[in-house]
Amino acid sequence: MAATAGQVIVCKAAVAWEAGKPLVLEDVEVAPPQKMEVRIKILYTSLCHTDVYFWEAKGQNPVFPRILGHEAGGIVESVGEGVTDLAPGDHVLPVFTGECKECAHCKSEESNMCDLLRINTDRGVMLHDAKSRFSINGKPIYHFLGTSTFSEYTVIHVGCLAKINPLAPLDKVCIMSCGFCTGFGATVNVAKPKRGSSVAIFGLGAVGLAAAEGARVSGASRIIGVDINPSRFEQAKKFGVTEFVNPKDHKKPVQEVIADITDGGVDRSVECTGNIDAMISAFECVHDGWGVAVLVGVPHKEATFRTHPGNFLNERTLKGTFFGNYKPRSDLPGVVEKYMNKELELEKFITHKVPFSEINKAFDYMLKGESLRCIIRME
Amino acid sequence: MAATAGQVIVCKAAVAWEAGKPLVLEDVEVAPPQKMEVRIKILYTSLCHTDVYFWEAKGQNPVFPRILGHEAGGIVESVGEGVTDLAPGDHVLPVFTGECKECAHCKSEESNMCDLLRINTDRGVMLHDAKSRFSINGKPIYHFLGTSTFSEYTVIHVGCLAKINPLAPLDKVCIMSCGFCTGFGATVNVAKPKRGSSVAIFGLGAVGLAAAEGARVSGASRIIGVDINPSRFEQAKKFGVTEFVNPKDHKKPVQEVIADITDGGVDRSVECTGNIDAMISAFECVHDGWGVAVLVGVPHKEATFRTHPGNFLNERTLKGTFFGNYKPRSDLPGVVEKYMNKELELEKFITHKVPFSEINKAFDYMLKGESLRCIIRME
Ligand SMILES: NC(=O)c1ccc[n+]([C@@H]2O[C@H](COP(=O)([O-])OP(=O)(O)OC[C@H]3O[C@@H](n4cnc5c(N)ncnc54)[C@H](O)[C@@H]3O)[C@@H](O)[C@H]2O)c1
Ligand SMILES: NC(=O)c1ccc[n+]([C@@H]2O[C@H](COP(=O)([O-])OP(=O)(O)OC[C@H]3O[C@@H](n4cnc5c(N)ncnc54)[C@H](O)[C@@H]3O)[C@@H](O)[C@H]2O)c1
Ligand SMILES: [Zn+2]
Ligand SMILES: [Zn+2]
Ligand SMILES: [Zn+2]
Ligand SMILES: [Zn+2]
Repeated sequence: MAATAGQVIVCKAAVAWEAGKPLVLEDVEVAPPQKMEVRIKILYTSLCHTDVYFWEAKGQNPVFPRILGHEAGGIVESVGEGVTDLAPGDHVLPVFTGECKECAHCKSEESNMCDLLRINTDRGVMLHDAKSRFSINGKPIYHFLGTSTFSEYTVIHVGCLAKINPLAPLDKVCIMSCGFCTGFGATVNVAKPKRGSSVAIFGLGAVGLAAAEGARVSGASRIIGVDINPSRFEQAKKFGVTEFVNPKDHKKPVQEVIADITDGGVDRSVECTGNIDAMISAFECVHDGWGVAVLVGVPHKEATFRTHPGNFLNERTLKGTFFGNYKPRSDLPGVVEKYMNKELELEKFITHKVPFSEINKAFDYMLKGESLRCIIRME
Repeated sequence: MAATAGQVIVCKAAVAWEAGKPLVLEDVEVAPPQKMEVRIKILYTSLCHTDVYFWEAKGQNPVFPRILGHEAGGIVESVGEGVTDLAPGDHVLPVFTGECKECAHCKSEESNMCDLLRINTDRGVMLHDAKSRFSINGKPIYHFLGTSTFSEYTVIHVGCLAKINPLAPLDKVCIMSCGFCTGFGATVNVAKPKRGSSVAIFGLGAVGLAAAEGARVSGASRIIGVDINPSRFEQAKKFGVTEFVNPKDHKKPVQEVIADITDGGVDRSVECTGNIDAMISAFECVHDGWGVAVLVGVPHKEATFRTHPGNFLNERTLKGTFFGNYKPRSDLPGVVEKYMNKELELEKFITHKVPFSEINKAFDYMLKGESLRCIIRME
């Protein structure tokens, strides 16, 4: 038992006071974990585009003041009532979506969309008592995605924590807590390209490159990267991307450009942009008869997917995925083991590192499109 | 060898001279089969909604004068150059889409959309020489879907003919040549419901009821029939449909009505209407996490499928199918055998029978929504 168990911990957290304004490092009070909750000491966290979306709060409900952050690795400090799966000292990855192990989704082989702990981007409080565990001078600060990892300590539902091998380096495997698994799983669990097939990846950010890593590991022979930012292309070569298409270089819609270079379309595509036009192109660029397109990016609330229904009747399949169809508690420990067994490469995703005090730099790198993942070191 | 081999045959055919006007029984000249073609004596043909669409030619290119018809059973009269798979006397089902056995689609396990012989609704001539084999006083009459079965004799590419068990009754198995296989295959080959699952079927025409038959054979425990024509409901009970929803009876969109009665959505849905609103509802009514929707109906050329992309991200799958994903030559003989082994019921689809001279009655029955399948007896 840590001496802090049952006590309020005062620690540093990066608070987003307002949409789009730099985070401010504040001393926050972190209440002890309640029923089925766990308090975690975060060692490393990284910045994902989803944090930026909710910080900008364009086309998303603004919830402020809030502690963002959902990609991280940490160590259990103390556990609340009813928690039997985790104990102080366990190494964990927090996940923005959970696994209660009881609901129809958790019991289904096909779904990871837990009814109880499914992502909720609007909720800024804990499930148990609809209150926040964070406060500054008694004034609550909202949670984000049930994780709020931009804090030295945070409180998370036990169902949103994957217990991993304590030998796994948290400064690397922290990126598995969202971006890596989302992209990698989208390819290996959902698109499932066959050996020798062609795969188009829309968006070459961390999620898209993790999708490319999935295509590489699956033995795809052509991996076509599509991005409107050509500076992504050089980097993407390290991820096995064999060809590049910049939609801005062409007068034709990019789906037609891809059909031209692939004799009718790719076997699989994975969309990792969040842009609705890219979603439509990603669907329409797959080959008729057998093509499968997978949507990963989080769209604008008002976006509408539109296509001629004939594109489906010609035997194309469109699926979406959420966290790469991984069940966080059941599946993540195994994905971490794949890294430990050198079947996966994570280092190439990590382009920047900053201390917690410079967390706003991580936002700058992402906004400029310079970073894939910037690791934020808490100590 | 039939005495007619190599000769022009003059026989009765029902000619559609103009969009929407009753067919006229005419004496037509049917030329001998050319390279890779087969001349068939049609014994029974049935009317499918697709015939009616192209006869009405609303939202479809008008191609007239034309001999419609694509659901049929017949016997090979003579074969053209290069045909080795079929011989005079063989019993065959003509299919509106073919299987060349050479192209990427035919070689793929997943596709039945043969590059060479794929459905082409605008083409009114044979592939070999871009000419028609039908004429009246030397003036060509156009083909339809490469089959034109509303004729005592017709000429068809060998790749569009399935050779079946000669003991199979052609007045029953003729409906496998389009409607039955399209609906049944959509369920068993594409939607693949699990035993005990819930399935919604949109459109309770012959195709939808064949899809319901697929759900019944798969062991679905709830089969929810959706149709705007309540007179379909009584009939549908024979097909294992357990519940009915008429979208017109509700203020809410039908996808919400279905979500209400199924605790969030059905496990699978199969759309067999051709109506774009039904397509969208069929997609949106499947359960998140694992739901799969399959589109079968042929939409208006100008239709647009639209939905919020979040409906995909919540792990729903949308697929389309074409002829129930069956490869006509490879798979149809086996489906006929299932009927011969009493694993499938066809009789309940056949609601009407008329002699060839009364073919226009078949159109009336379908337009009034009275018939499922009306069998037209050629002799
Ligand atoms: N479904 C999930 O479970 C899940 C989880 C994490 C992230 N995401 C989403 O995945 C997406 C990618 O995340 P990321 O961290 O890699 O972001 P990122 O910003 O690093 O990368 C996105 C890339 O897409 C490119 N892009 C934008 N519009 C494009 C277009 N029209 N065509 C081609 N390329 C285009 C950008 O130039 C950029 O390189 C985001 O939408 C994010 O919210 C989804
Ligand atoms: N994809 C293929 O390979 C293929 C092959 C054959 C037929 N089809 C198509 O399948 C569809 C069904 O064919 P059929 O012969 O059974 O036709 P049908 O006319 O006998 O049945 C269609 C049924 O759909 C119902 N319907 C129409 N609009 C609806 C709506 N908005 N909501 C609910 N129900 C609605 C009608 O009342 C009717 O009962 C047609 O579009 C046909 O062209 C497709
Ligand atoms: Zn993320
Ligand atoms: Zn659950
Ligand atoms: Zn048909
Ligand atoms: Zn072919």
